[in-house]
Amino acid sequence: MIPSEFDTIAAISTPLGEGGIGIIRISGKDAIKIADKIFHSPKGLKLADVKTHTIHYGFIVNPQTGEKIDEVLVTVMRAPHTYTREDTVEINCHAGYITLKKILNLVLLHGARLAEPGEFTKRAFLRGRIDLSQAESVIDLIKAKTEQAQKIALDHLSGKLSEKINELRDAITRVCAHVEAYIDFPEEDIDGLTQEQIQSEINRVKEEIKKLIEGYEEGKIYREGLRAAIVGKPNVGKSSLLNALLMKDRAIVTEIPGTTRDIIEEYVNIKGIPLQIVDTAGIREAHDLVEAEGIKRSLKAVELAEIILLVLDSSKPIDSLDEEIINKIIHKKVIVVINKKDIKSREFQLPESLKDKPAVEISALKGEGIEELKELIFNTTITGKYEQEGVVVTKLRHKIALDNALEALENALQTFEKKEPLEITAMFLREALNCLGQIVGVVTTEDILNIIFSEFCIGK
Amino acid sequence: MIPSEFDTIAAISTPLGEGGIGIIRISGKDAIKIADKIFHSPKGLKLADVKTHTIHYGFIVNPQTGEKIDEVLVTVMRAPHTYTREDTVEINCHAGYITLKKILNLVLLHGARLAEPGEFTKRAFLRGRIDLSQAESVIDLIKAKTEQAQKIALDHLSGKLSEKINELRDAITRVCAHVEAYIDFPEEDIDGLTQEQIQSEINRVKEEIKKLIEGYEEGKIYREGLRAAIVGKPNVGKSSLLNALLMKDRAIVTEIPGTTRDIIEEYVNIKGIPLQIVDTAGIREAHDLVEAEGIKRSLKAVELAEIILLVLDSSKPIDSLDEEIINKIIHKKVIVVINKKDIKSREFQLPESLKDKPAVEISALKGEGIEELKELIFNTTITGKYEQEGVVVTKLRHKIALDNALEALENALQTFEKKEPLEITAMFLREALNCLGQIVGVVTTEDILNIIFSEFCIGK
Repeated sequence: MIPSEFDTIAAISTPLGEGGIGIIRISGKDAIKIADKIFHSPKGLKLADVKTHTIHYGFIVNPQTGEKIDEVLVTVMRAPHTYTREDTVEINCHAGYITLKKILNLVLLHGARLAEPGEFTKRAFLRGRIDLSQAESVIDLIKAKTEQAQKIALDHLSGKLSEKINELRDAITRVCAHVEAYIDFPEEDIDGLTQEQIQSEINRVKEEIKKLIEGYEEGKIYREGLRAAIVGKPNVGKSSLLNALLMKDRAIVTEIPGTTRDIIEEYVNIKGIPLQIVDTAGIREAHDLVEAEGIKRSLKAVELAEIILLVLDSSKPIDSLDEEIINKIIHKKVIVVINKKDIKSREFQLPESLKDKPAVEISALKGEGIEELKELIFNTTITGKYEQEGVVVTKLRHKIALDNALEALENALQTFEKKEPLEITAMFLREALNCLGQIVGVVTTEDILNIIFSEFCIGK
Repeated sequence: MIPSEFDTIAAISTPLGEGGIGIIRISGKDAIKIADKIFHSPKGLKLADVKTHTIHYGFIVNPQTGEKIDEVLVTVMRAPHTYTREDTVEINCHAGYITLKKILNLVLLHGARLAEPGEFTKRAFLRGRIDLSQAESVIDLIKAKTEQAQKIALDHLSGKLSEKINELRDAITRVCAHVEAYIDFPEEDIDGLTQEQIQSEINRVKEEIKKLIEGYEEGKIYREGLRAAIVGKPNVGKSSLLNALLMKDRAIVTEIPGTTRDIIEEYVNIKGIPLQIVDTAGIREAHDLVEAEGIKRSLKAVELAEIILLVLDSSKPIDSLDEEIINKIIHKKVIVVINKKDIKSREFQLPESLKDKPAVEISALKGEGIEELKELIFNTTITGKYEQEGVVVTKLRHKIALDNALEALENALQTFEKKEPLEITAMFLREALNCLGQIVGVVTTEDILNIIFSEFCIGK
């Protein structure tokens, strides 16, 4: 699609729910014309005549019936200095369902089309205001569950990842230019020094890409969170542990001053990692169930979890039921939680199979050792790559592109070292460039874009 | 509190949830100063220098740490042409919990106080931009569940009720002036013509107030909705009726184009009346329960409901269980729903006790007669007073004030006709004025204001 042919789109851009202010955003060449049809200014202003980046008081009125729909403030922002780089109008109205619905319907009736999820951001990308990795980070910024995740998303939006990728692309382009120079002038041999430089530069870029790939596991955890299952036989203190974990940090949302909502999702904030406890409902009820059923439920949670918190009751010796559970989870990433440390029995001894697993002694009931457990969860999953590098890859799409770029560079290096025809090396270098280009969106297809933006909410 | 001493308040003004845009509103004399401390414009702009009603691109930055918090648009609106009539700054950021929380915390850290529920609107009232009944309608506008309810709220916000009340207050003031003139010049007798005029004017105002009071029952229904219970013995088709009712109009929220949410509340839109089915869960399960238990559940729903939809199975004669149920609900407002009309038995006959109740024949399963039932529910509860008058009272607070005004006017009329001292008549007239003044907020107390605005959401 050619950007100049874009139609005018509209959507509710604020979250749904009751609130003071709701916004309907209109973007496209007819945005101001459409808004003018339904906006009535007591001063007789026409939006077509107002300066850009100004806000105006008035009413939304159905021009057919004369019915007043709401008292509003309308912001007019003309291209190119807007979110989409198109003319944009934002109608600030009262955030009730009916009001928003009525105004949106009126806007759609007068020439706008309902925006697809992420379509405003997609236009910002297609019109060149931001690159693809920046566009993708917008949804992460909105969905971030911890401050760390929000910070990473904002870094990406600000272009930190893009800068890194573009730096690597520039380096490859320079190497490629060198190589291609020799293709164009085949009579000249590559001298030793140049050959060494090309090899070392490809190696340097490879190392940088490797670091980014290595950081992905952590980046993904920051972005998507980590699923944990609390596992153990009945009455070892699973519910108490869950409560102790949730107690302090459950309030990810209620921490917003003045909100009265309870919680949105059961995430525990582990030093910036959103930790989600899988199937907590089942675990909570487990003590009411017969033993076998309790174990069955726990095992289901195990499958879904990325990390297992294995709870053992240290007031008693390990028994066959414990052993059975251990056997079923030992293949996963396990943290051993030795509960009831305040009444620990002399007969309690960790089984051999758990000796090399990270372990911590706690009293879930008394809330003791919980901070140490969190520390352990964090250290077991995060090695600090993000802190070292400052740039972290959080998306599978980016990770795959980096994997492919790395492979192409390896091929380029090998063919170069084996003195195969330089055309082949150049081809691999261009492939590496291509892969990195996918991250920032220099190389892309409509299909890829559709997949990326379908993750978005309407109105962004 | 003296308005000039108001401090600067801030809150998240958009609904909570994930979305494209979130707004943090700051209002008060330091609003712009506070925003300037945390706003960084790439152009080096200071908000203190910009024109009113303009919007500016930049970043929110923590001035202590230099940490960038979000990419934002900031609107600056200077007093008096703002919602609160105070200097107002709105920070348009990404609507994620973490981002909103971080920015709000920063604003609070730099000199603003967290706004109480409804405090922005309360200031709009205290500073005289709108009267009290207008301020109260803001929350109705936000919470409106049908278009009718939204329209009534907007009418009130636009001052339709206030106009009516002020018109009546003016009339009483004029009468009062007449009466007081005779108090001041006691040597002059009130002549017959004037006496008649005073009486007829008080009567006219009384009639107007009566009409407003009579409209309250309907106004309340439009505003708050109506609770209905579907009642009947097992297998008469209660679940099918519920489904048939919900089928078409359940989608009060999903009607917003592009929203993917299911439903927020189970309201059926009956020609503008939000009808809430009480204890639907119980009714849905009723057919799985033993008969006695089914009846018990239904009866609980009956207590809470304002209207009863009594379902009878017309394929069989009325039996003792039907009779038992009828006895228990006959004191309520009942609509008789004669179900299974397509297989109606000749032996089916309405019991004597239901003969004067509104009734409709339907087939819940086939969806036949549902529109007629809705029509009946509407006509049974709405007599069209709102349509006739154009102004409708929807709030108990207003209704009580009108009741008191009416009583005071009756007392004024009686004392006047009995030729008691004119001072007494004047006192009652002033009392009536006072009562009407409470509606628009000419007469009010901090306690009343606190009660009114505590109903609001934060940020409005």
